[in-house]
Amino acid sequence: MHNADVDKIVRGAVKQALAEKSGVVPGANITLKAARAIIAAVFEAAEQMHMCAIAAVTDGGGNPVAVMRMDDAYLASYDIALGKAYTSVALKMPTKTLAKLAAPGGELYGIQHTNDGKIVIFGGGEPLYRDGKIVGGLGVSGGTLAQDTALAQVGKKYWEDILCR
Amino acid sequence: MHNADVDKIVRGAVKQALAEKSGVVPGANITLKAARAIIAAVFEAAEQMHMCAIAAVTDGGGNPVAVMRMDDAYLASYDIALGKAYTSVALKMPTKTLAKLAAPGGELYGIQHTNDGKIVIFGGGEPLYRDGKIVGGLGVSGGTLAQDTALAQVGKKYWEDILCR
Amino acid sequence: MHNADVDKIVRGAVKQALAEKSGVVPGANITLKAARAIIAAVFEAAEQMHMCAIAAVTDGGGNPVAVMRMDDAYLASYDIALGKAYTSVALKMPTKTLAKLAAPGGELYGIQHTNDGKIVIFGGGEPLYRDGKIVGGLGVSGGTLAQDTALAQVGKKYWEDILCR
Amino acid sequence: MHNADVDKIVRGAVKQALAEKSGVVPGANITLKAARAIIAAVFEAAEQMHMCAIAAVTDGGGNPVAVMRMDDAYLASYDIALGKAYTSVALKMPTKTLAKLAAPGGELYGIQHTNDGKIVIFGGGEPLYRDGKIVGGLGVSGGTLAQDTALAQVGKKYWEDILCR
Repeated sequence: MHNADVDKIVRGAVKQALAEKSGVVPGANITLKAARAIIAAVFEAAEQMHMCAIAAVTDGGGNPVAVMRMDDAYLASYDIALGKAYTSVALKMPTKTLAKLAAPGGELYGIQHTNDGKIVIFGGGEPLYRDGKIVGGLGVSGGTLAQDTALAQVGKKYWEDILCR
Repeated sequence: MHNADVDKIVRGAVKQALAEKSGVVPGANITLKAARAIIAAVFEAAEQMHMCAIAAVTDGGGNPVAVMRMDDAYLASYDIALGKAYTSVALKMPTKTLAKLAAPGGELYGIQHTNDGKIVIFGGGEPLYRDGKIVGGLGVSGGTLAQDTALAQVGKKYWEDILCR
Repeated sequence: MHNADVDKIVRGAVKQALAEKSGVVPGANITLKAARAIIAAVFEAAEQMHMCAIAAVTDGGGNPVAVMRMDDAYLASYDIALGKAYTSVALKMPTKTLAKLAAPGGELYGIQHTNDGKIVIFGGGEPLYRDGKIVGGLGVSGGTLAQDTALAQVGKKYWEDILCR
Repeated sequence: MHNADVDKIVRGAVKQALAEKSGVVPGANITLKAARAIIAAVFEAAEQMHMCAIAAVTDGGGNPVAVMRMDDAYLASYDIALGKAYTSVALKMPTKTLAKLAAPGGELYGIQHTNDGKIVIFGGGEPLYRDGKIVGGLGVSGGTLAQDTALAQVGKKYWEDILCR
């Protein structure tokens, strides 16, 4: 029997066991170490784009794990970055997807007013998944919409390709 | 027998009868028992639609009676579901009706800003009536607009057909 | 080899594997089913004490899972119950312990002002643990301090003795 | 050589020299690089004390530069750490000094209510000086009052002894 098979069987058994236990939903939270690495990747890309950003990472419950501001970034970007990270987790979608739904005429038009200002409807927020579950959210603010959106995808890709392997 | 005595006996009997009927306490508020039953009906329908919802029931004063979150529902849906229930009571209309009035060009355009963020303008909220009086509000969030609207109607129908008979 | 042994070994292996995986902290959230059962136990005890309560259960991230109000409970108890549940999770202690620390002269005097009003410093909140990790919080409000505190312990005990076995 | 040219050259050289010094950008704000180093020093000390902390660094304007949460730290510590950092800058004193002034009978009794909840009156916040000017604030939360206070001093000392040399 190969190690990979054993691993697969054990994982399946565990998943099943967890699901059968009453009272708790399997879940997990992104670590500070991972959050720092994601933000470093985002800031490296921001430097190459000659811009200053603020990046925030929350856990799967929408609570902040790390928020950092590049020197000279907009002060306002702090709340926006954190809001994008929260929104990605709270609505389980990238904020660029939400932006369309929340535009006048869209299904979620007005959602930016429903949650005490915590919902941000600009691109630049991405949910972070592991094994199909949201374990965190990333929010980036500081540049144009296109830049913020691109940077959030850099961070998400870094999480998926490097940290989750 | 004096009129006053007859009156007293009749009133007592009515009060008793009302108390025994599920769903409403004198003073026209929906009961927790009824709220729970409505939410259970909504969640059963949500499961059949393979989705996760949050449902909220308020009383006729717009105050929460019960709010429940299906495992894995959007975190943001909590405030939205509660807001829809409140809005249905506070404006005496389904939120899907309000959505049209609050759209750009509509008569109530801007109403989502007038009440400290408590007014929600998406479908999925329904006022609950008894004998022509609003005794509660139901709000559902977690799916598409069509799903939330359908689920709120399931709950409303359950209230009207089963609980209010 | 007994199933129980296998189960134990698999659980240990999984715990270890999860801990070694970079990027995620093991965690879990209380289910709606468990939250409902805990609240039912609390309300049964409240009825025996001839009082009306509001009870709230949050998950391990402090987000609400279920909140219910017994008919005729104080309207103000809604925010208080939810705040107690949140506080128990956010500070990892029963709110009756916090009450002492937050009294004038105590180490945490003033903490009720530091978190946007989310920290409640009356007894009646209990963190809910599973395998040494906080997976939820319970808050009860509606009676005297002694009653609320007793009811929260009823709910916590129900979780530990019945649901977590 | 014209005076204007000399002036230009000197200014450029000074700017360059300042930019190379770690920790401060002209305009007297702590850098992200310095904030990260301070927080790393605080977390290393926290680990040695077997505790989990959240640490926040703001600039001289009280705006957040970096906030990080050790895995398993109290959720409530986020707002508190950030509040301590802000308070240290906003009142130009360690929060342990403020704690005495804000106690019942103290000169600043009630100050925790005057600034929208942004003033925190527990020890664990330290202003960060350079050349006699406040360039940042550090806030630590997660342990006992003594632990938080000690950790903030670790961070402040690291700033003074290592980063500001």
